[in-house]
Order: sequence, then C-alpha cells, then structure tokens
Amino acid sequence: MNIFEKYESEVRSYCRSFPTVFNKAKGSKMWDEEGREYIDFFSGAGALNYGHNDDKMKAKLIEYIQNDGITHSLDKASTAKGEFIQKFNDVILKPRKLDYKIMFPGPTGTNTVESALKLARKVTGRTDIISFTNGFHGMTIGSLSVTGNASKRKGAGVPLQNAVTMPFDNYVNEDMDTLEYFERFLEDGGSGVDIPAAVIVETVQGEGGINVARFEWLKRLDELCKRWDILFIIDDVQAGVGRTGTFFSFEPAGIKPDIVCMSKSLSGYGVPFAITLFRPELDVWNPGEHNGTFRGNNHAFVTATAALDYWADPKFEKEVQRKGKLTREFLENLNKKYPELKGEVRGRGLMAGIASDVEGLASKVAAEAFNQGLIMETSGFNDEVFKLFPAINIDDETLKKGFDIIEQSVRKLVKEPVFN
Amino acid sequence: MNIFEKYESEVRSYCRSFPTVFNKAKGSKMWDEEGREYIDFFSGAGALNYGHNDDKMKAKLIEYIQNDGITHSLDKASTAKGEFIQKFNDVILKPRKLDYKIMFPGPTGTNTVESALKLARKVTGRTDIISFTNGFHGMTIGSLSVTGNASKRKGAGVPLQNAVTMPFDNYVNEDMDTLEYFERFLEDGGSGVDIPAAVIVETVQGEGGINVARFEWLKRLDELCKRWDILFIIDDVQAGVGRTGTFFSFEPAGIKPDIVCMSKSLSGYGVPFAITLFRPELDVWNPGEHNGTFRGNNHAFVTATAALDYWADPKFEKEVQRKGKLTREFLENLNKKYPELKGEVRGRGLMAGIASDVEGLASKVAAEAFNQGLIMETSGFNDEVFKLFPAINIDDETLKKGFDIIEQSVRKLVKEPVFN
Amino acid sequence: MNIFEKYESEVRSYCRSFPTVFNKAKGSKMWDEEGREYIDFFSGAGALNYGHNDDKMKAKLIEYIQNDGITHSLDKASTAKGEFIQKFNDVILKPRKLDYKIMFPGPTGTNTVESALKLARKVTGRTDIISFTNGFHGMTIGSLSVTGNASKRKGAGVPLQNAVTMPFDNYVNEDMDTLEYFERFLEDGGSGVDIPAAVIVETVQGEGGINVARFEWLKRLDELCKRWDILFIIDDVQAGVGRTGTFFSFEPAGIKPDIVCMSKSLSGYGVPFAITLFRPELDVWNPGEHNGTFRGNNHAFVTATAALDYWADPKFEKEVQRKGKLTREFLENLNKKYPELKGEVRGRGLMAGIASDVEGLASKVAAEAFNQGLIMETSGFNDEVFKLFPAINIDDETLKKGFDIIEQSVRKLVKEPVFN
Amino acid sequence: MNIFEKYESEVRSYCRSFPTVFNKAKGSKMWDEEGREYIDFFSGAGALNYGHNDDKMKAKLIEYIQNDGITHSLDKASTAKGEFIQKFNDVILKPRKLDYKIMFPGPTGTNTVESALKLARKVTGRTDIISFTNGFHGMTIGSLSVTGNASKRKGAGVPLQNAVTMPFDNYVNEDMDTLEYFERFLEDGGSGVDIPAAVIVETVQGEGGINVARFEWLKRLDELCKRWDILFIIDDVQAGVGRTGTFFSFEPAGIKPDIVCMSKSLSGYGVPFAITLFRPELDVWNPGEHNGTFRGNNHAFVTATAALDYWADPKFEKEVQRKGKLTREFLENLNKKYPELKGEVRGRGLMAGIASDVEGLASKVAAEAFNQGLIMETSGFNDEVFKLFPAINIDDETLKKGFDIIEQSVRKLVKEPVFN
Repeated sequence: MNIFEKYESEVRSYCRSFPTVFNKAKGSKMWDEEGREYIDFFSGAGALNYGHNDDKMKAKLIEYIQNDGITHSLDKASTAKGEFIQKFNDVILKPRKLDYKIMFPGPTGTNTVESALKLARKVTGRTDIISFTNGFHGMTIGSLSVTGNASKRKGAGVPLQNAVTMPFDNYVNEDMDTLEYFERFLEDGGSGVDIPAAVIVETVQGEGGINVARFEWLKRLDELCKRWDILFIIDDVQAGVGRTGTFFSFEPAGIKPDIVCMSKSLSGYGVPFAITLFRPELDVWNPGEHNGTFRGNNHAFVTATAALDYWADPKFEKEVQRKGKLTREFLENLNKKYPELKGEVRGRGLMAGIASDVEGLASKVAAEAFNQGLIMETSGFNDEVFKLFPAINIDDETLKKGFDIIEQSVRKLVKEPVFN
Repeated sequence: MNIFEKYESEVRSYCRSFPTVFNKAKGSKMWDEEGREYIDFFSGAGALNYGHNDDKMKAKLIEYIQNDGITHSLDKASTAKGEFIQKFNDVILKPRKLDYKIMFPGPTGTNTVESALKLARKVTGRTDIISFTNGFHGMTIGSLSVTGNASKRKGAGVPLQNAVTMPFDNYVNEDMDTLEYFERFLEDGGSGVDIPAAVIVETVQGEGGINVARFEWLKRLDELCKRWDILFIIDDVQAGVGRTGTFFSFEPAGIKPDIVCMSKSLSGYGVPFAITLFRPELDVWNPGEHNGTFRGNNHAFVTATAALDYWADPKFEKEVQRKGKLTREFLENLNKKYPELKGEVRGRGLMAGIASDVEGLASKVAAEAFNQGLIMETSGFNDEVFKLFPAINIDDETLKKGFDIIEQSVRKLVKEPVFN
Repeated sequence: MNIFEKYESEVRSYCRSFPTVFNKAKGSKMWDEEGREYIDFFSGAGALNYGHNDDKMKAKLIEYIQNDGITHSLDKASTAKGEFIQKFNDVILKPRKLDYKIMFPGPTGTNTVESALKLARKVTGRTDIISFTNGFHGMTIGSLSVTGNASKRKGAGVPLQNAVTMPFDNYVNEDMDTLEYFERFLEDGGSGVDIPAAVIVETVQGEGGINVARFEWLKRLDELCKRWDILFIIDDVQAGVGRTGTFFSFEPAGIKPDIVCMSKSLSGYGVPFAITLFRPELDVWNPGEHNGTFRGNNHAFVTATAALDYWADPKFEKEVQRKGKLTREFLENLNKKYPELKGEVRGRGLMAGIASDVEGLASKVAAEAFNQGLIMETSGFNDEVFKLFPAINIDDETLKKGFDIIEQSVRKLVKEPVFN
Repeated sequence: MNIFEKYESEVRSYCRSFPTVFNKAKGSKMWDEEGREYIDFFSGAGALNYGHNDDKMKAKLIEYIQNDGITHSLDKASTAKGEFIQKFNDVILKPRKLDYKIMFPGPTGTNTVESALKLARKVTGRTDIISFTNGFHGMTIGSLSVTGNASKRKGAGVPLQNAVTMPFDNYVNEDMDTLEYFERFLEDGGSGVDIPAAVIVETVQGEGGINVARFEWLKRLDELCKRWDILFIIDDVQAGVGRTGTFFSFEPAGIKPDIVCMSKSLSGYGVPFAITLFRPELDVWNPGEHNGTFRGNNHAFVTATAALDYWADPKFEKEVQRKGKLTREFLENLNKKYPELKGEVRGRGLMAGIASDVEGLASKVAAEAFNQGLIMETSGFNDEVFKLFPAINIDDETLKKGFDIIEQSVRKLVKEPVFN
C-alpha cells in the first residue's frame, strides 16, 4: 500500500475502506496480492453487475484485440459500434417498445448526465433543473449542481446554480405527499420556483441511502412532467442494467422517460462506457455540440454487445428477480433477529441494504465483513446504510456465503459496548 | 452507415467527415469494412500518439485479460495501478524533477480539468479561473466555462460563470503584449477582474487552431502566476504525451506548473484514462471529495505502463523531434509552393497544420485527402486549419506517403475555380 | 393622460388601474385634476401610513427648507440626520429593548434588502439565502433573486442565483408543517440545500397575497435560525411602521431579528428613505463597502423625525389596533354576507383583504371601487386579493365610508352574470 | 459626531473624510453646526450640480408642499409628473433630436442601471453585459456585476456573473487600441466572450479616476455596437446634467445611445430621482415588470421641472463650458507649477482633477483643503485623484477662492518630507 500512500492524492477513498492490493478477480470473487479471497458484494458500485471478467465477454474481447479491431474511434462509424447499436435495439429497446435515439457522450456517468441536462435546456429554452433530495448524479459542475450531498457540493468551490431540489418520495415523513408539494410550486406563479427544463431522478438512490421511489410516485411524477411540459430524465446509471431486477429500473413503473442516462454496467466488463437515450423528437443537437475523446471505446462496444446475450433469454431476468427476493428475505430476517440494529430494510432487487439508526454501526458492519472476506459499501450521507450489491448473476452458494458473513458481522458488532 | 443515421443522435460528427465504417487498425493505418486502407494523420485527436494497437501494449493487455487481472477497481489499490504509479514516477516524473502527487479522476479529459479547477478553487478560496482565447478544455459545465468556442458554449443552455477570458499569446496582433495586458487587469483594483484561483492554458491549442504559445510567454505567465499567487494549470490533454516532441509539452519552456491535466494518449492504447498531477502541498482533498466510477480502469493502467517503455529510451524523444522537423519542413515548403493557400504554418512537433485564409479551403483539403486515403482533421472555430497529427512513432515512409497525399490534395484544390 | 401614454414607458402600471391625473392629497383623501375626490385605501402601497401631507410633518419640512437646511448630504453627518438617529433610538429602539446599529443604504426598499443580503453573506461567509414562497423583496437582481413572483423574475433576463425558496406558513395545506420540512433540509446533509447565510421573510406578505405568518411560526423560525447559526432577516418594508398594529410587525411574535429592513412609510411623508438595522456584532462593514448617492435625504430625516411623535404616545398604537379590528370585522361580515365571493379574509392590523376564488373578481371589485371613489389595490400572483391599506391614522368616518364603497362594489359585482 | 459613531453602522464613509456636522447650505457654500463655512467642490458626488437649495427650485417646492400637492404617487399619473415629462421633452429631448421613451424606475442611480440591464437582456434575449475597466454603476447585485472596483465587488459576497470587462479608452497604454481589441473578441467565435446584450459605459468615469473617453472612441464604440447589434447604454448618472458642459455628456461625441441612465442632479435640488431613457422600439416592458415604491417622488418632479429652466436659455451651457475651461487652466497651471505632484490633469468640463503618482498625496490634498474650508473628494481605486466637482452655476469668485485653497494645500503638502 506504500506506493499509494506516498504518490496518490489524498482524494483516494475506497482503498482506505478496503486496505489491500487486489490483483485478480473472477465472477463474484476477488483476490489480493497475498492470495486472500473476497466475496464481492460491491460490484464496482454497480459497474460490475455481471461480476468480474465474465468468460463470454472475455473471449470476445480477447478475440477482438487479437484481430486488431479498431480500439479508439471517436465517433467515427465502426463495425463494433454498429453491432452494439443494432443489438441494443433488438434486445433491449424494441421488446420494451422504447423508440430512443442513442447518443454516445464521454464514457462516464457524469458525462451522460451533463449531456442530458444540456439537451433538456436546449429543447425547452429553460435553465433550471429539478433534482431530488439525496440524488447523486456526478462530480462535474453540471452534474454536481443536481447532486444533494453537501460535502461533494462544497468541493465545487463555487455556488452551484440552475437547479432546485424537491423532496424525494417519502422524504420528511410518510404523511407528506411530496409530489403534491412539488406541483404546488409549479402551479403557483409566486412560488419562486421557475418552470424547469427537466426533472432528473433515480428510481432507487444508490449513493443517497438506497431510497426507493414507489412505482405510483414515479408514474405520478411522469404525469406531472407531461402536464407541465417538463422533460423527465431518469438517471439509470446505478440502478439500471438489471440491478433492480429489470434492464431499466423504471420498467415496472410503466413509464417511458424522455431521456435516460446509462453507464456503469453497460459495458458489462467494467470498462468505461455511457450512452444517453432520448425520444427522437428531442434530437435537436447540432453535430459535435457535445463531444469527447472517448466516445468510441470499441472494447466497451464489444463487451457490451456480448453482455446483451444475457437479456436475450427471458429466464435471466427471472433469475435476477429471484435473487433479489432472497436478498430481501435475508435482510428482513436479519433486521428482525437483531433489533439492536434499529434497522430499516431498503432497496429493490439486488440494490438493497439496511439503514441503521445506531451511529457508526453500518460502517462497522462493512469493515467487519471485509475482515471476514466480504466487500460491501456503505451508503447515505452519514454512511448509515450497509449496502448489498452482489452481481446479478451471482450463484446461490456465493450469495448465501456472503449473507453468512454479514450476519456474523452484525452478530458480533451488536454485542459491542460502544453500540449499546 | 445506415444504422448510425437511423439510431445514433444527430450530435455525431466525425462519422460525417469520414463517412465509412472502420473495423481494423494497426500502427498508422486503418481499414474500413470494404477493406480500403487509410493513413491516419488524425490519431484519435491526440489519443493515439503511439498509433493503433501497438504490439507490445497489445501483448501485455491480452496477457492481463487472460489471467483475469482485475479490470475495474474504482480507487481500490490494485497491482496494475501500483505498477503504473511506480513506473510513471521512475520514467517520467523523477528524471524531470517533477515532484507531483497523482490523482485519478474519471478517465476523460474533461474530468481531469474539472478536478483541477475544483482543487484550485479549494486551495485558494477564490472562484474565478482565467482561461485564454480559443482554449478548449471539455464539455461538462465546469470545463465548458473555460472553453472559448461559442457554439460549444451555447450548448450549455445556461450562462457560463466564474471564468474570465484573457488573450492568448499573439492574439489581436503581434504588437500587443498579451501578458502586459493581463497583468494590468490584476494590478488595477478597478479592473473588474478579480484575482483568480488559477489560470488554465494549453501550450499549443489543438482545437482552437494549432496556436502556439512561445516559451518565453509561458515562462512569463508562470512568473506572473507566482507573483500574484495564482495557480498555474497546464491542460496537457492534447499536447502532452510526446505530441509536441517531449513527454510534457511544457518541458522546453523550463516551467513547472502547479497542476497538470493528462488524458488522451496516456493509456497508450486508446482506452479511457486520465490523471491530474499537482504539487504535494496542494493536495488538500478530502477522501472521495471528487470521485467517479471509472477511476480504476486497469486495462488502461496496463497499457499505460507498457507505453512508458518508449520514454525509458532517450532516443525515442529525439526521433519524435526529428519527425516533427520533417513535418515542419514539409508544411513550410507546401505553403511556399502554393501561395494560393494564403496559408500560415502553425504548430510544434507533431501537432502541426496550415491555417488558410481562403474560406472553406482547409476543410476541402481534408475531405480530398480522405478521398485519397488519408485521415486528417481540421481545427479552429471556422475549420480554417488542416491539422497534421501523425502518430509520434510513425515510420518515415508512411509519414511521407501522407505528405504526398496532402500535397496532391492541395495541388488539386487550389486550381478549382471556387477558390480563385 | 395623453402625455403619459405618449412618452412614458409601457412599464407603467398603477396609472392603468387608476386612470386619472392626481394633483392634490390630504390625509386619506386624494383629488384629481377634475376635482374629483377619492378615499385612499392604498396608501402608496404602504408608503403613506400616516396619510398624505400630514400637517405636523409638513410644517417641519417647510420650515427646514425655508431655512436652507442641508438637503442632500450623502453620508456626511448632518443635524437633521443626528436628530433622526437620536429620536429613533429614544422612541423606537430603546423602549423595545432593541439594540441595533443603523445603516443608511440608498433610500428604497430594494436597497435595504440588498444591503442586508450582502451583510449576511459577509458575516457568515456563505452564499445562499432562504426566502419564502410569495415573498416580495425588490426588483434589483439581488432582491429579485429572493422574490417569488414568476413574471418579475423573468424580467431579470438572467437566471437568478444563490437563493432557495422554502414554503411560507400554511403553504400547500394546513396539515403540512412547513418549518419541519425546512429543517429536514438543513439537518440532512444530502438534501441539496446548503446551509444558508440567512433567511429573509415578511411577517405578512403584502404583494404575495396578504399571507400572514402565525406568531408561533415566526418564533419557531427564529429558533431554527439560532439553532443553525443562520441570520434572521425581517423585511419590514411593507408590514412595518404600524401597518400591522405595532411599529415593527414582528413585535407581537416576541422575536428580535438579526437584521431588519425598513423603508416605505419610514419617512412619514412619502419621500424616499430606507434604513437597515442589525445587531452591533454584525457590523463588520468596511467604510463605504455599500454606498449610494441618496443615503442622505435630509428632507426625509426631518419628516421621519416628526413622524416618530406619533409613536411617543402609547395611545397611538392602541388606536391603530382598534382600527385594525374594525377592518377585520368589516371583512368578516362582508365575507359572510356574500358567499358568492368564495372569499377568505386575510391579514393583520390594517394590512388586510379578501382573497376570492372567483377568477377576476377581486380586480373587478377594486376597479368598481375606483369608479365609486375609492383607491384600493389587488395583491397575489393572480390579483386574487383585494387589499385594504387605509392610513393607520385614518378617522373612523372616512374608514367607514371606504367600507361602504367596498360593500357596494361587492354587492353590485356578485350579481353580474360573468361571476355566476 | 458622537451619535454617529455610537449608532451608525461602520459602513459610513464621507463623515470620516469631512468630520463635522453640517446643518445649512446655499449655492456653493455649506455651514456646519459651529458656523464654519465651506466651499463645496464636491456637489454631492454630482447630485448637486446646481448647488445647494437653489432659490427658484426652493420657491416652487415650498409652494407645492404648501398647496398639498400630491407627494408620493407611485406610478399613478400626477400633474407634477406630467409637467416634468412635457418640459423634459420640450427643453431637453426635442432640441437634441432625441426621441426617447421615459421610464421612471426607483429614484436612485443603481435602479436606473438595473432597469437598463434588464431591458437590454429582454430585448436581445442575451445575458452578458460588457462593462469597462474602472466603470462604476451601483451597489445592487445587477449594477455591481458591471462595476470594476474590487473592494465593492467583494462586498457582494457571491460571485458576480453575466458581465465581461473590456478595457476603457487608453487603458493599458496609449498604443493599444482598446476597441480593436474588443472587436477581436466579438468577431472571433473562439474568444470565449459571447455576444453581449449591451455595453454600458460612462463617458467620463467619475468614481474610477476621472478617466475620459475620447469622442472618437465613443463614436467608434457606438458603430461597433450597431455593427454587432449590441445595445449601447450610457450611464450618465454622474457625468450627465451639465457636469461635462452639456446636458448629456455624450452630446459632443455625436452619438445617440440606445439607453441612457440618469439620476443624481436630475431633480436639481438633491432629492432622489432617476429616469431611464430608451428608443421607443425598445419599449417591450410588460406593465409593472420593473417597479418600485418611490418611482413617483413628486417633490423631485417639481424641482426637476424648475431646474430645466436653466437649460431653456442657451447661454447657460456656454457659461458652464467657460467655467470648465477655467478649471482646466487652473489645473494645468497647478500641475506645471508643482512637478512634485507627479500629476496628470484629467477630466472634461467641471468633472476634473489631478491624478498624482505620489502615494497618498491626493488624499492629503483633499484633507488639507477641508482644513482650509473646501470640500473636495478623491477618486480612483487608490484615491490617487483629487477631484474638482464645483456646482455648474458657481460664481467666478467662489470658484477662484476654491482654486486658491487647493493651490495652498498643494503648496503646503509637496514640501512635506513624507512626500519627498
């Protein structure tokens, strides 16, 4: 670890929670330089939904590289890119009756978000974006403006502008209808909140505390947007690509957002890739109006195309949902069994966790789990949630082994005097 | 091309200038699906300085993938990352007496720029950034605020803030000393320009028209920054990694910037990668204050480490510089031979071009060169420059073949009635 | 009226509601050039709380002018200014145990608000200000940023920044505790609402619809501000100087704001004057840091000093409160008698009105009242409130005559088919 | 002075330079409470161009007050307002062939500036305003954004936005053509300076150092604005109403600005008043889109109308210009006689001064002059200019007496060791 402490910036973070040097990974397992094995319930913060180094994608990627397939193509047309577009249409968009144009922004989550915000402003001629409490959308100034976290916001060094925060579903308390509140601000010309270009929302807030928007809330938000001619952007960077049980996280809500932001697990293999999807009528971009050097990462096109094979088979989705249920059951039981957690089970599908009211406990659970060979992140402004993000194709045995480690960690910690 | 026109957003651009589908590439050559061969004088806009699919890097990358080396590690410590850090220190930083901390932001140019601007604001507690006319720094809102191009700026859809533009070297006319002008604004408390957190500058403006800052201008800018306690950021995303003849473009100016932004060719192989370098005293980041999903693209670490082998041998730099001279001579001769170009030779090293005063001519030269099998971009707000960006390890034969195509294109076009 | 239509800008407004040329005024009466008499229930939008051309102030003013007392003194010390400061302390501040420093910004409401916002930002080092739905604080960019009205905001021509709107008391619906909601945003580090420099609030919103904040709401808001170290600014420009029954509108709530903005009726005679009051510990201004040409309007000092005589006698306040009750009773009865109004009685003291749910009715009531010789304004974003602002020293006879005209106007209009 | 020190905010400034309590004033003379007489070469920073308490205006004002003429009328039509509009057209606009609509914003300089900026943004749909180095336009956030002074800007407490500073005439050095520079930024789409809504400029910068724009510079700026369809705003708040020798300061340049801001001496008597003038085609305001409580200060209408009598007689202007020449001659001679001043004579008409290169000397000259019975301000960011602003109707005797005091002050000070 010495070299990281000496030369890498203080900004580094995960290497502090998981203080070892990793060198190998496969499926839901990782190994460090000492040969220690870890179960991965972190999945690259949602960038490794198919686990590490999936064999089928790996084979395709190696073959592509061996044949000197073009690696970097900017936004020139390439065979690999064409194949991705075609398959994404055939396997994902068409069966879901989603008629979207595909934009290739830079290969990161914040880049698809920035492109979505620009487009919404261009289409509507308005400047404000409505985001929601505890939303997380990225670290560049445009995305940071719609991100809730105060520490990240402060990092901007300038006041963040052109954004207004509204309460997410179930914010404040259960009695308050947050959309009634939101709409009151729109319909009242004296509210001080100007009609926005768009709303941007995550269906499940991955960084903000595994907060789940109910389907009817999303549906009503969609209707509200239509009523006020506001564009509806779903940031599916973390919740998408099967994490909640369907390819897009918004499918079960029965809505069709105007714009969708995708990244993280889109490439399947963990290499950088992002796309922005939108209704064809919104495609008012001038050529090159938003660009970027790594729009054409063909390695990602190759693995992303291979990854879509999973979705071609309807059984896959069912399996993911079954594992989601297992996870939920495990957490519900755990929470009942250990009332000392003062916990609340949160999440949807394989995006799940327990928010503990005991200060510092969730972080300790994650730290103890690491000691016992499980990698798991926390979430929420105060790291009050321990967050289970197993690969969506994890085998049952590894999943349960992970559960066991979590339970052992909880059992050990709730007895400690500091938490009692 | 059909599938791109039907499904890809109108924002696509290079596929309009180079309307064919590429599928293979090696060194300075590319092939399209029809098997047609092209010489590449574009180099992925500076992301492919070592050419396509370099054999040594390719071997290392395939080996790494085959062994299931960890692909995506966020900012966890990994063997591949450690090796990159070590070698970057040994081969690049130490020999140049540059004592920098390394930050791994998201893997794109705009992300390193955004991280640099944030850091400068945090360190100084000031908000404004000084950028320069025709500077290009990226498409996310923070980077776009310091970018000159009016069309790109308009794409923001909101007023761009916290930035002030100063004239680049030789802007307006040769008589005007642009730094005297700049300093006048700093020393005059009534100038309306607040003391900025930082200046950000490219030593050669790649997108803005291949405008070259003289070494003495850079040196004086560096002194001015020190005098006023302003941080000096060099954006070496496009001009770095050998493009101008040395690893960092600022080396011959004898300066040590406070912060350096690197991306594009850093990975060597064209896969997404970026780092931000800064003086250790500036490393005031809180853990995770700027983060991003693809900070740990281990494929890039592997190829970037392999690419550094080029620089371990001092002959490499000499060779790059020799090819830079060949390119300069070619352009000078071309410009003399064809006064109809009303041209001005611009550039440094292998970042070169001719700015033509004849409206539309530079674009036509690039288009004709494409027809003859050469890929070459234009630069400048009005595409008034045709821009030669051959790989820095291109062989002489291919380089001269490229020159021939350019000369033939020019010869053909200057005779056309539309340009006379 | 011809000359106004021909030469004055389209921005003119009140001359459209009251289309005649006024030339004389006394107490609660005004006369136009035709000699027609009007009862004034408008009071210069709160700038003429003592009626027009009060005899005692008039005598002092004429005497001052006749003696060539200094008229314009910027912020030089002058006898008239010293006398005002002394008397304001003796008659207003000391008896109320308010230990405030007095700042003389430019002589308008928006100027005292701008000075308050600057000071709050300077003291705290923070940038955001929390304002409330339907708040109205002025038309210059700083004040407009904390103003709710969408049409006024649009007039800015630029996005308004550094301000966040929270719900005023009883906003949305009666069940919702708007301060619980507000505090949720403060205590949650992920809310996207940064801790502000200050809140700015009117105790009764004059332009926004005569919305009254309950005393306990104000008290809780005050406590919330103390808890979070946020400065509490009361904008008493319209509600102050006796309008609600006490000199400062916040007195009955038992709070002592950190900063108070005063203007409108402060000069007593309707001439421009404003002051900003704040706790001595907040007085961190540098000399001249906020300035303005008309800070030293000595005519205003003279009449403002004379006006304070009213307040030296405790009976005055009682009388104002008695008239407030009369007004309330009148409105309650009117509202009961004419259910066709679908009205809601609003207000406190002599800042009162009826909000009618019948679209366009309130404006018609005001227009009909004008025809019958009463000047009365509307309020609220849709002009849904007719607003009674009689002078606070109006005699009972004129007050009742005014009531009669209003009742007659209502009676006539509720029968009209268009409102049925 | 005790009461001011105890109760008035630290923001007070002029009472520190002129530490006495004034109570009487007439023409170019002021008296303090001790009966000491002062000659006024300050003229309320340009708000008292006709001297103090002019007898004709005084008579009209007293008569108006005695007759209970309406004092405060918001923007209702009033007889006094109508008379002002008519006379302003007859005496000022028509003879100068200026066909302007008149807007009555709040009664201060910053308010007319804010209204001008709003209008320019509304008309053009653009957001940026170009201002000039050392420009001074007011203290509210909109006006402050276009003001150069760093200390005042810092007082905002937020980054100032939507404005770009260009170099005023003769900024940097005499060789540099500041308009060529400016236009280069407009014509170059890569300059980073977006086409602005308007430029705002003072023909002579009163606060910024008595910097004079040459007529040909103003004319070229006017042409440049027309060429680029940018609105041309002259802020004539300080330089207008005869200060430079003509009613509008821009008359001798032969230009007709799109928008003109007037305040300060407009009321003639030193009471608050401001107007915004613009071409009729620009009058796109919605009713009430910019408003304010003190738009209808009828006392100001009365005295402003009386003041226009001066301008009805063409001899008046000639006399003002003759006194301007006397002042210039005096300063030129003084400057020659005392090379120790290291001075530069600046100004136009009765807006004049000497900029001294000796640090602290100009302030000392003003302080010494005060000791000797003359009130005179300094100007420039470092108070490097002592500034002569006598009344434009000052009699020759008083003018020369003032000159004598200045010369004696200079003579005394240049001998002092601290300045040698």
